[in-house]
Parts: sequence; structure tokens; C-alpha cells
Amino acid sequence: MDSENKNFNPESYIRKELYSFLPYTPGEQPGLTTSTIKLNTNENPYPPSPKIGKAVEGVLEKGLLRKYPNYHSRKLQELIAKDFDLDPNQILVTNGSDEALRLLFQTFVGPGDVVVAPDPTYSYYPVLTEQMMVGAKYLAIPVLENLHFDLEALKKSKGKLLCFAHPNAPTGIAEPKEELLALVKSFNGLVLSDEAYIDFAAPDTSLIPHTKDHPNLLVSRTFSKSYALAGLRVGYIVGSLETIAWIRKLKDSYNVGILDQVIAETSYADKDYFLEKRNLVIQERSRLKSNLESLGFTIPDSSTNFLFCKPKPGVSPEHLYLSLKEKNILIRYFSYGICKDYIRITIGTKEENDTLFQTIQTFL
Amino acid sequence: MDSENKNFNPESYIRKELYSFLPYTPGEQPGLTTSTIKLNTNENPYPPSPKIGKAVEGVLEKGLLRKYPNYHSRKLQELIAKDFDLDPNQILVTNGSDEALRLLFQTFVGPGDVVVAPDPTYSYYPVLTEQMMVGAKYLAIPVLENLHFDLEALKKSKGKLLCFAHPNAPTGIAEPKEELLALVKSFNGLVLSDEAYIDFAAPDTSLIPHTKDHPNLLVSRTFSKSYALAGLRVGYIVGSLETIAWIRKLKDSYNVGILDQVIAETSYADKDYFLEKRNLVIQERSRLKSNLESLGFTIPDSSTNFLFCKPKPGVSPEHLYLSLKEKNILIRYFSYGICKDYIRITIGTKEENDTLFQTIQTFL
Repeated sequence: MDSENKNFNPESYIRKELYSFLPYTPGEQPGLTTSTIKLNTNENPYPPSPKIGKAVEGVLEKGLLRKYPNYHSRKLQELIAKDFDLDPNQILVTNGSDEALRLLFQTFVGPGDVVVAPDPTYSYYPVLTEQMMVGAKYLAIPVLENLHFDLEALKKSKGKLLCFAHPNAPTGIAEPKEELLALVKSFNGLVLSDEAYIDFAAPDTSLIPHTKDHPNLLVSRTFSKSYALAGLRVGYIVGSLETIAWIRKLKDSYNVGILDQVIAETSYADKDYFLEKRNLVIQERSRLKSNLESLGFTIPDSSTNFLFCKPKPGVSPEHLYLSLKEKNILIRYFSYGICKDYIRITIGTKEENDTLFQTIQTFL
Repeated sequence: MDSENKNFNPESYIRKELYSFLPYTPGEQPGLTTSTIKLNTNENPYPPSPKIGKAVEGVLEKGLLRKYPNYHSRKLQELIAKDFDLDPNQILVTNGSDEALRLLFQTFVGPGDVVVAPDPTYSYYPVLTEQMMVGAKYLAIPVLENLHFDLEALKKSKGKLLCFAHPNAPTGIAEPKEELLALVKSFNGLVLSDEAYIDFAAPDTSLIPHTKDHPNLLVSRTFSKSYALAGLRVGYIVGSLETIAWIRKLKDSYNVGILDQVIAETSYADKDYFLEKRNLVIQERSRLKSNLESLGFTIPDSSTNFLFCKPKPGVSPEHLYLSLKEKNILIRYFSYGICKDYIRITIGTKEENDTLFQTIQTFL
């Protein structure tokens, strides 16, 4: 054994930017065997389309698993394109929307570039900015006291890329589409509208149709939430033909597996089932909001499948979070900035929401 | 519509390193309905484990698709670790081995760093070096005339990372393990042994067990070839606890879906089926090699599921490739360097190999 080699220290070989890099912190994962009520990662409380079983059988029977999947997830591209009257090549299907965001950043965010975003928003954006390891800067523009975007400040900001979640997370608030489009028009760089939760918002609030006449606009989506497919890794990003072609250059050849492609296609095409479950979540959101408000919670109108709740004065959100955790109910608590005054609760099934409500009632 | 915005030109926003970046070129994908014999991307000719069907049903029945998968693909980590007597955290499960390679490069390959590799080898390494967009350099060390690694030149080379496929692609040659370990010991940087095809090599030739006492050694693997799961995206990388912990910092939270995890686990655990099909491929490899040699082909001993074949003098490999394509048989032809004198043929089923052989015989 070579002694130099025995003493090999990986730290002296890794890129120095990684020393201080802190990865994104996903929600806790309790053991699968527990009776935990899991309302901490915005998963859908209902199962995905029942048509999936047969579609999966088809893949196995046709012996497709041994073959490489289509590079472009072509059928899914076409289904989505048809819905929005777009060219299929305006859609890049990715391994979750996380991959879409990573590719977008990698394509555009170079040394010294500035990424602008409201604060709070999806906390993966600052992580990605760091992760590029090119010395890019992250400019966080605080939301207003009412938790809405500070649109004036965002419009005045300068940067290579402006990112926001629409509706926003963790606030759940959807800004008016016209305001967002005005922001897209005025921003002197690319704008990402991250629409992970848009299916729970009012109809026709997505910015996807506007990618046609706003060449600096990109929209990302995921199958994880509204399609109840967090267990798959499928998302996509929509933009102009040219912008998407640049982003596509950086993706792995086969980034989305055949089962992921077929299950996403099947779920996407089963529109009746999708709408039924989506509407159930929206109904439950309204019911849970009223119930919690009756206990003194302040909750902005949510356009997502979660509620961002400020308990009544004197009740510590962190204490409430920990107390629910003891009772086997997981919600999300973020200990930074204005978020530390709130808890985020994913909409569960009627039964889960009732158990949550009763447990909070007892706690108070 | 803002006129400045209408004229938005993505090219002025993308990172300048992307202008000249050429993505990896995967093998051609014929339409799924054709009767094409596809021997161009080293897919397994046999189906994956028949136990997969029930495992998939289990995932659907338990309603796991709506939930986020385990971050670490924990069960798969544990199965692999047990086989090699490693700590599960020495294994990072990834979205295909492509993701493993990307994360490895991203962790270690910074501005001005040198990546060393034999030439030819897996042509994704130079693509990745470019893709890092940090001004890293790629140093290709030509193989010897007999297509074996130039071990002396590799030992003398200096760089941050040395990558090779073991067995090598597209040559199919496995260098003696002792020679590779000597190279690992002498190289003053990290060494990646990319073992995509190792299951088709002689037993006990993997470098995985040696990650225990060679802290600068990393080994990548994939389920695409020997496990007949190219349709999934599952691979992994093995190294010291410390090195893997650094690489893990950069992965997306949920990089491998629940179906991918469960199917990979099931296939990995079904060792009898695996060995049976692996042995069939090895038998066919030997038979096809003899047949082609009887037609004057020169073929190095293959430790993979493909043959790297030089036709007899006077026969153009490119012409042969195109002629087979016309007959609906796809093989791989690389038009650069020494590869341009060869064709690469994936081992198919007995019937596919016979059709291929007869078609070549007729062509000659």
C-alpha cells in the first residue's frame, strides 16, 4: 500500500466552493410502517389515476424495461403541447422539476451573475445559485407585510434570472397574472414562473400560454403534487423553442425512465379523475382554513394544496409543530425570516384534516 | 408588448461556454413498431427479472406513488453494501450512472483542473469535462496498438481525476485488476473505474472491494446493461465514506423514484435469474465472436456484452454499418480516431445474432 495514497484526503481535492455549500433540506421522512399523518411535504392525499396499473403492465408485457427510454419523453411532450397549443419542442421533460431548475441555472447563471427572487419562496433557488459554484449572487426581495410580492421592488431589480413560485411557497399566495406578466415584460433577463402548485389555483392563472409571446419567460411544472406522483420523478419546463433548445443541450441523454414517462402520460390524459381529486383538495382546503380560523389562526388565501398559518398571539408556531410531531402528525416549520411566525400544513384527506384540527384544538 | 422584450435573444444570456458545447451522442432510436434488430446501444437481449411485476404491483397497492421516495434509496444501498461488505453510506444511488458521473465531476473538477482518460473510452467523459464550464482540460492517452491501456503513460500522467471504463468501451477489453490497482496507487488524484459492463467480465475483477483500502478510488455501476433495466434510470457510485459524503451534497433531494428503487432492488436480489441470463450472453458472445472470426474479422477478447470488430482488409466498417442499417439491423459505428476502423456489435439473442451473421456473410 502506497503511503501517500493511504493518506489521501478528499477535502484537498474537492472544489473549495463546496466547503460552505449547504444542500436543500427536504421535509422529514417518517418510517413507512408508522401511522404518522404526513402533512409536511405537500404530497397529494389521494392516489394517482387508477389507469396507471394497466399502463405499467403494458410496459412490462411489451418488454420495454430492457430498452433505453425515448430521449425526449416524446409522447408526454406532445400531450402537453396539444393542451397549450405549443410546439412539442417548447417542452423539456425532466427528472422532476428539480432537474429542470438545475438545467436552467446551469445554462444561464455564470460567474458573477445575479439571481433575483422574492423572499420567502421555494428555498431551492438560493441552494441552486450556490451549487453552480461560479460565484453567482442571490438577491432576495422581501415580500410585503401582507405576504404578497413587492412587485415594485422586483420590477426595479436587475439580474440574469428572476425566479418565483406561482403560486408562491410557502405562503400559498397567487399574484394576479397581469401583474406577473408586467414583471416579465419589465425584467431585463430571464424569468422563471415555477408552477408546482398552479393546478390548485384558479383556472387560467398559469403563465404557460404566455411563453408564446414572452421570449424571456420560462415555466416549470411537476407531476409530484397535483398528479399525486411524488414517487416518480417527472417535471417539465416550457419556454421559447430557442431557449429550450439551449437548456436541452445540458440534459443527460436518457433523463426520464420509461415507467415515469408512461405513468405521467396516463395520469395527464385522465383529466376527469384529475379534476375530481383536485376539486376535493380545494374543498378540503377551504374547510380546514375556516376551522383553523375559528381557532384564531391568520391564514392568507391559498391557491395551493397547503395553508400558511400564523397561530393566534401567544401561541408559538415551533411549539405547536413539535407538539403535533409528538402526536405523530408531521407539518412543516421553517425557523428563518418571517416564516418563523408560521406553520405550513399540507391539505390531507378529510379524516387527516379532522384529526389535525382536533389535535390542534386540544393543544390550544 | 414591450419591444425590448420582443427582441429578447437567449443567446446573449446563455453562458458563453455553451456556444461550442456538443452534447453526448447516444445511439439511434428506431421507432418501437419496426422489426429492427437493435444491436447498437448494448441493451440486454433478455428481459429483466420476472419478479419485477409483483414488486411493481406492491408499490401501486401500497399507494407509494403519491409519496416522495426515500432520499437515499436506502434498501438498495443496504443490499449492495451487504454484497461487498461495505457501509451503506459508501454507496450513492443515482438516476443512472450518468448522474453519478456528473456529480463526481461537479464535486472535484474545478477551474483549470485536468481530467485524464485513455482513448478511446466512454465518450461521455470529455463531454462532462466541457459541461462543467469551468475551463477544465481533458487529457486523452491513446491506447496501445493492441487496444490495451497504455498503463505506463497513464501512470505518468498528472490530473485531478482519472476516468476509465473497466472493462473498457468500445473495445470490450478488461485490463488485469492488479495493473489497475497499481494505477490507482500511483495516480496523484481521484480515479474512477466505470464498471457499466463488469458483470460480463470474469468473476472478481471489480475494483469495488478495493474502495476499502484505496481512498482515492471510486467505482460506478449501472442497472442498464447486465440487469436489463435501461428503461429505468438507476446506477450507483461507490467510494470512501468521506468522498461519497461530499458527492452526495450535490444530488437532488429525491433523485431516484420509488418504482426505480423497488425494481432495482428486486432485480439485484434475484441472483439466480441474473446469473442465468448473464451466462447466456457470455455464451452467445463466444459463439458470435467465432462466427465473425471465421469471416476474417479481428476481434479482441471481450469482457462486455458487445464485440469491437475490425472487418477483414478491404471491407469498410462504415459501409458495413450502413448496409446492415438498410437491412434493418442497427450496430454502432464511431467515425473518429482508431474507432473508425471498427464496428461495435451488441450481443443479441441467438436468433438476432444468427440473422446478423447471415446478413454480414451475404454482404461480404
